[in-house]
Amino acid sequence: MPRQFRKQVFCCTTEGEGKCATKGGVEVWQKFKEEVAKRGLTDVIVTRVGCTGQHAVGPTVIVHPDGLWYRQVTPDDVAEILEKHIIGGQPVERLVNPEMRVKAD
Amino acid sequence: MPRQFRKQVFCCTTEGEGKCATKGGVEVWQKFKEEVAKRGLTDVIVTRVGCTGQHAVGPTVIVHPDGLWYRQVTPDDVAEILEKHIIGGQPVERLVNPEMRVKAD
Repeated sequence: MPRQFRKQVFCCTTEGEGKCATKGGVEVWQKFKEEVAKRGLTDVIVTRVGCTGQHAVGPTVIVHPDGLWYRQVTPDDVAEILEKHIIGGQPVERLVNPEMRVKAD
Repeated sequence: MPRQFRKQVFCCTTEGEGKCATKGGVEVWQKFKEEVAKRGLTDVIVTRVGCTGQHAVGPTVIVHPDGLWYRQVTPDDVAEILEKHIIGGQPVERLVNPEMRVKAD
């Protein structure tokens, strides 16, 4: 049975000095998984991801297919990102990292 | 200076028995980085990614914003994925994992 998702949320959990794991990236990843499960969002997949070079403003979260980077995400921001962006379709502007973007042609 | 990418290529490098790293996932990730650099594709970002549960058919590669999963990717497949899909816009059908997809509403 193929699984089709509407969103894929990537949370950086890279270890090492100054990297996202030292700033709470693992907790953000765990919180996304918990909150997605709690809401029964079977069309959202949460994945941990390696370094994209944005740890100065980490923890990093990337949402696809939107191609949007979030910065300095804390576990307390997770519900807001899920409700406003993942469910509601509106990015949480105060957390958007304007330095990075994936956008189709 | 903001960086805008056209594609983000995620390569699974998860370690552990039967996981993508034991099947060559790290080599696939390194090959993508090398081949992207060699071609000067500054609008393509290559990122390592954690487990999405598809290691039975790993190594896994995911291309966004397309939301397409590839399975059983070897370093020898990397140039073809870059040329046909990332540059040419046509997925390499023989490597597509039909079980997983991210697709916007």
